[in-house]
Amino acid sequence: MDKPSYEISPWQLRWQGLDLDALRRTESTFALSNGHIGLRGTFEESEPRGLPGTYLNGFYERRKLPYAEAGYGFPEDGQTVVNVTDGKIIRLLVEDEPLDMRYGSAPRHERVLDFRSGSLRRRTEWVSPTGRRVRITSERLVSFTQRAIAAINYTVEPLDDEIQLVVQSDLLANEPVTTRTDDPRVAAALDNPLISDDAFAERGSYRAVLAHHTRASGLRMAAAMDHELFLDEDNIRTEIKAEEDLARLTVAADVPKGSKLTLTKYLAYGWSSKRSSPALRSQVEAALVGALQTGWEGLLAEQRAFLDEFWDTADIEIEGDAELQQAVRFALFHVLQAGARGETRAIPAKGLTGPGYDGHAFWDTETFVLPVLTYTIPDAARDALRWRHSTLDKARARAETLCQKGAAFPWRSISGDECSGYWPAGTAAFHINADIADATMRYLYATQDKSFESECALEMLVETARLWMSLGHHDTHGNFRIDGVTGPDEYTAVADNNVYTNLMARRNLRAAAAMVEANTALAHDLGVDTEEASRWRDAADAMVVLYDDDLGVHPQSECFTSHARWDFRNTPDENYPLLLNYPYFDLYRKQVVKQADLVLALHLCGDEFTPDQKARDFAYYEALTVRDSSLSASTQAVIAAEVGHLELAYDYFAEAALTDLHDLHGNVQNGLHIASLAGAWLVVVAGFGGMRDHHGNLTFAPRLPPELTKIAFRMTFRGSKIAVEIRPERAAYRLHAGEPLELTHHGDPFTLGTEPVILPIPATPDHPAPRQPHGRAPTRRRPR
Amino acid sequence: MDKPSYEISPWQLRWQGLDLDALRRTESTFALSNGHIGLRGTFEESEPRGLPGTYLNGFYERRKLPYAEAGYGFPEDGQTVVNVTDGKIIRLLVEDEPLDMRYGSAPRHERVLDFRSGSLRRRTEWVSPTGRRVRITSERLVSFTQRAIAAINYTVEPLDDEIQLVVQSDLLANEPVTTRTDDPRVAAALDNPLISDDAFAERGSYRAVLAHHTRASGLRMAAAMDHELFLDEDNIRTEIKAEEDLARLTVAADVPKGSKLTLTKYLAYGWSSKRSSPALRSQVEAALVGALQTGWEGLLAEQRAFLDEFWDTADIEIEGDAELQQAVRFALFHVLQAGARGETRAIPAKGLTGPGYDGHAFWDTETFVLPVLTYTIPDAARDALRWRHSTLDKARARAETLCQKGAAFPWRSISGDECSGYWPAGTAAFHINADIADATMRYLYATQDKSFESECALEMLVETARLWMSLGHHDTHGNFRIDGVTGPDEYTAVADNNVYTNLMARRNLRAAAAMVEANTALAHDLGVDTEEASRWRDAADAMVVLYDDDLGVHPQSECFTSHARWDFRNTPDENYPLLLNYPYFDLYRKQVVKQADLVLALHLCGDEFTPDQKARDFAYYEALTVRDSSLSASTQAVIAAEVGHLELAYDYFAEAALTDLHDLHGNVQNGLHIASLAGAWLVVVAGFGGMRDHHGNLTFAPRLPPELTKIAFRMTFRGSKIAVEIRPERAAYRLHAGEPLELTHHGDPFTLGTEPVILPIPATPDHPAPRQPHGRAPTRRRPR
Repeated sequence: MDKPSYEISPWQLRWQGLDLDALRRTESTFALSNGHIGLRGTFEESEPRGLPGTYLNGFYERRKLPYAEAGYGFPEDGQTVVNVTDGKIIRLLVEDEPLDMRYGSAPRHERVLDFRSGSLRRRTEWVSPTGRRVRITSERLVSFTQRAIAAINYTVEPLDDEIQLVVQSDLLANEPVTTRTDDPRVAAALDNPLISDDAFAERGSYRAVLAHHTRASGLRMAAAMDHELFLDEDNIRTEIKAEEDLARLTVAADVPKGSKLTLTKYLAYGWSSKRSSPALRSQVEAALVGALQTGWEGLLAEQRAFLDEFWDTADIEIEGDAELQQAVRFALFHVLQAGARGETRAIPAKGLTGPGYDGHAFWDTETFVLPVLTYTIPDAARDALRWRHSTLDKARARAETLCQKGAAFPWRSISGDECSGYWPAGTAAFHINADIADATMRYLYATQDKSFESECALEMLVETARLWMSLGHHDTHGNFRIDGVTGPDEYTAVADNNVYTNLMARRNLRAAAAMVEANTALAHDLGVDTEEASRWRDAADAMVVLYDDDLGVHPQSECFTSHARWDFRNTPDENYPLLLNYPYFDLYRKQVVKQADLVLALHLCGDEFTPDQKARDFAYYEALTVRDSSLSASTQAVIAAEVGHLELAYDYFAEAALTDLHDLHGNVQNGLHIASLAGAWLVVVAGFGGMRDHHGNLTFAPRLPPELTKIAFRMTFRGSKIAVEIRPERAAYRLHAGEPLELTHHGDPFTLGTEPVILPIPATPDHPAPRQPHGRAPTRRRPR
Repeated sequence: MDKPSYEISPWQLRWQGLDLDALRRTESTFALSNGHIGLRGTFEESEPRGLPGTYLNGFYERRKLPYAEAGYGFPEDGQTVVNVTDGKIIRLLVEDEPLDMRYGSAPRHERVLDFRSGSLRRRTEWVSPTGRRVRITSERLVSFTQRAIAAINYTVEPLDDEIQLVVQSDLLANEPVTTRTDDPRVAAALDNPLISDDAFAERGSYRAVLAHHTRASGLRMAAAMDHELFLDEDNIRTEIKAEEDLARLTVAADVPKGSKLTLTKYLAYGWSSKRSSPALRSQVEAALVGALQTGWEGLLAEQRAFLDEFWDTADIEIEGDAELQQAVRFALFHVLQAGARGETRAIPAKGLTGPGYDGHAFWDTETFVLPVLTYTIPDAARDALRWRHSTLDKARARAETLCQKGAAFPWRSISGDECSGYWPAGTAAFHINADIADATMRYLYATQDKSFESECALEMLVETARLWMSLGHHDTHGNFRIDGVTGPDEYTAVADNNVYTNLMARRNLRAAAAMVEANTALAHDLGVDTEEASRWRDAADAMVVLYDDDLGVHPQSECFTSHARWDFRNTPDENYPLLLNYPYFDLYRKQVVKQADLVLALHLCGDEFTPDQKARDFAYYEALTVRDSSLSASTQAVIAAEVGHLELAYDYFAEAALTDLHDLHGNVQNGLHIASLAGAWLVVVAGFGGMRDHHGNLTFAPRLPPELTKIAFRMTFRGSKIAVEIRPERAAYRLHAGEPLELTHHGDPFTLGTEPVILPIPATPDHPAPRQPHGRAPTRRRPR
């Protein structure tokens, strides 16, 4: 498959020319979102297109989950993100000829996603089949500052003679969507999910509203549009109408050469599970009026200001590889888009860029995305965790269904209800609860947000600790075992004493005990006493952490290192990802790793391993890890960097950062891999920057891969902004704003103040180069 | 729930009076079958009824298996046994009033299943709502000697005055069936599965034929009926007709008091996946003419002769418990019915007595049913194994799908295709392959059937041995491990080195190697050389057999004895079976055993354990085994008897033998538990008789439970008929027919000749009484 080829530019993603086959993919990379509304990067004229998509965070349809053989506790209902009313559509007729780039010709066609303006710009010169030439320029944004609002500024100008133009600006519900593959990773398509509640257009105005609800989940939504028209002439005719599934403003004008027709379209979306249609209509109309008041230029300015602040806190500079420079900013921009304004909704694995994974959120959010948000836009991390907290009652009910204490958060969900239809790689992956606890503690350490601690964190820590106490047990030797669970590696399932899970559970238990001690009164209200907390400590202290003395490595779980190795040599390239070509049972019982598991423990629980153990464990698992998940390369990069394999880390860095731009998994059409994009940040900051944050101690151990001449990154910690610049021989730390901080550099403490601190980088540890499974080494990166 | 109450009688199952609620259950216990055709015990008048059912072995409908999340290698299609054209129906109008026992009254009503005549008799005196009295007597059989044939002899006599009677004898296709529960164990109901191909009735005759095919599986069938009428008067009018789904002979007669109307209905069934409708029609008409030639009395006589021979070979006498005497003959009769004339079709778990488990066959057949058939009617065992052999190509294809060598027989199937929709308790239970190999070897040892050895056994042994070689591997210490499989206990799944599986695989490998050596030329044709066979021996010799030195017991599988014990004390009675009330994940990771697993190894691989190990293992697992499967009590009885817990063995004996008569699992309505019925035989012969047959050495170690005064059983081995009589102090062995045999009694060899050999029974070993999980001890049996 020919990959889309983007032009390399430090602050933009740019695509020149028309490539119909690439549309599905570029619609994902060019998607705009603020975490609340998401618009895929389809053309205004709607066709040609790959996959249309307009998503509202948390707006889903319910469907029955079928089972060939049902079982107790299998979730009955699934949830699928809905392609809601499409407001992006602006159709154009040029002298009776609809603008459709499959016809006529487009001597110039360019799209640009601008990471600083936060907008998607388009410039198209089109020659109709009958030879009429027009130039279309458009710019659209989904507002970071007015979260219900998106807007499109759309201009047409005739390039030769006066032309009659007809512009139709639509709200379109229940767009037909082409059925997609049988791939279990691709969301089930939904047919006509929206049922009309109201359709309204004010005669003589440019405003219309459509209100709908979903058939099974019963969620209500409203979409509204209003417009401003700019044309020198007043020879213009407009009509507005609204039907059940279609509202349309039609503008007809004779536009002379040298003149332009400009239409600014303001879109507002709202949804609720509780509010009535009239209430939602009021809400979106109010949002519209606010946006009109701000105006297009005002929205653009707010957007840029928001992003200026973000980049000032979070920018990453890469010197020596222009494509990776672009890729990391692209990554940060999309992570921001996914998380910025989620506001107590989940951050889905695909953000709001596509329908992949049914629009569900997984552990990716807490483990990969929230570390980035915590250190770049901490309020967004807080809001994502508040969403988890808001689902605690569901998680408690789920734990009860599963005959456990405490709370069991869902493996995959939109609303907080478990939607996993295959429990060995779903419900059994209880580590998500420790991952949530870990993200909670990370946020607290990084912000010292006391109100979050008392309102949310304590309760989440307590309930997850209780879960671990019922999931585990002390065996006859007193060891605390956690049996029959699935770790991050989905090629081994339902195993005993997964080291990652046990270590993360230990952290969870200890953090919960410490927080209970620090909040005895509040803890009392949750029914926790010091005795319960001390049982958590006992369990943590007695936690089984497997070690294989013969091999000198940690087995991923019981017996893992005794299992047969996967026959990598006889596994052809086209049989990856393995789960599509081999049965689970064969994967589960062999030594083959889908994604970093023990190696993720080396990162997140790095304080539990010696440097020597890390080097040996990394080498052992490197030889088994096939990276059939996009959640692997970044972790492998982080540990490769730590143990001294900097070239390998650089290769994995490129893989993580380019996952979507190079469509490495062949499925970017269904949406971006937000966690992999977040992983690009993790590689820079935790990998090359060596940043660790165990128990709130912020430490660095930077090292530059030989291919690069400089990496600079910024982050925020307890209100202070930190700038780190890594050169081959030395690193420079600078307090960019805020109070001084106590940090360490390769183990040596120093105080970060207003004066830059420049410290030498020690020699890289020397370990033999690890080997990957046959055919699964990362591509050797040549800097571009 | 009130259990049906059968009258106790040594050679009959008798039910007096009408109990509408009990109908579903008694329709199963009163079912007739020859292994080819099965008729549930519904009334001739069709209603009231529980669940109608007419089954043809191997005749099924296909349906898609749905998955919430699909996976590679998950079977796409399921199979469900079809309720075919019902020929049992004979409706009666008494002076315009349809005979329906829900109306009027039935001063006398009795049904009798006779184990010696092989027929179901009925005698009903019915008073119509308007006061007309009639007596209906009927007898029906499904012929053991003419396998396509069933017949019903039906008589009505007026008890008061002359009465006008109208009798309608039907063939009815696509009977409406009430939807049943959500219980995953209950087969999915099928609506109108049959599509008419032909409907034919010969004017003026009493004969009609209906031919149909199934929509998805495309199997074709034909059902034909013919009749003989007996009435003193010739004042009679008949009509015959055939519609797509209904053929009907109507007989109207004025029957004087003291006279009778008798109708003999002959039914013939045929089906094929290949033959055309006309061919099938010819086939069933030919069978009908054959049956008419034999006549009703002839069919009865053949049936009795067949059963006389069976009971002469296989009868069991129980002295001291009349109900168990009845129960074991009931059990043997139904095992015979399930297996007698299967003839290269599967023996389903429910026989042909109900739609439970979708009509699928499982490992039960080889492990529980075939040992009985091997020693009572060995040709039936051979035919069942020939069915397995006939599916070898499918099993090889399945192994390939699963990325394994050799053949992988399906966990559940009608046709030989895997139909298991939940792989951890399906595909992963690879032990079925060793179970098939074991049954094959048992049959060969017991019969020395050379043609079966060369035509079937060698190939099955070779292909299953190859499967084990690819399922297992030699670890770095040279041990041969079989990882990630499910043993018999379905409350632990996908575990490493299940002891039962490993020991059975070892037997399989050794038997295959020996057979290859004995058949080098044939083996060569299968591509096996001595080198391959010697690798099988090496693997067998190096097979991991776990042992827990701390506890002095064999762990069921890796880590099993380190797992938390199930909290039996806080598990209320109504939460059994656990799988309907607790999630798999929680069951799998705890010490709780659904059904004998390690204890089954103590039986089938008893030569691998010392007596002391058996006693300790039995006690350990006894405390964990909840018997949520009907496949458990008989095995527990066998080992309880071996290790000296004879009273406990007696209790389990009762549980196994009465599973269906007492409806202990509450689901006999869906069909009988054929393996549990076979288990009753196993308890008598292998439990109290102590019969073992390791590697073809037939040994006995009889002991009588204190409640009984005598057990006598018969069996056949290498053409010789053996009679064993167990008394409290001594056992008597007698050669009933055939050549002398070398046997052992409690370890002492003796020769069985025509003279009875009477040997003393040694003292029972003394071990502390084992404990069962809280609330799960078997009911203490009081002899009846």
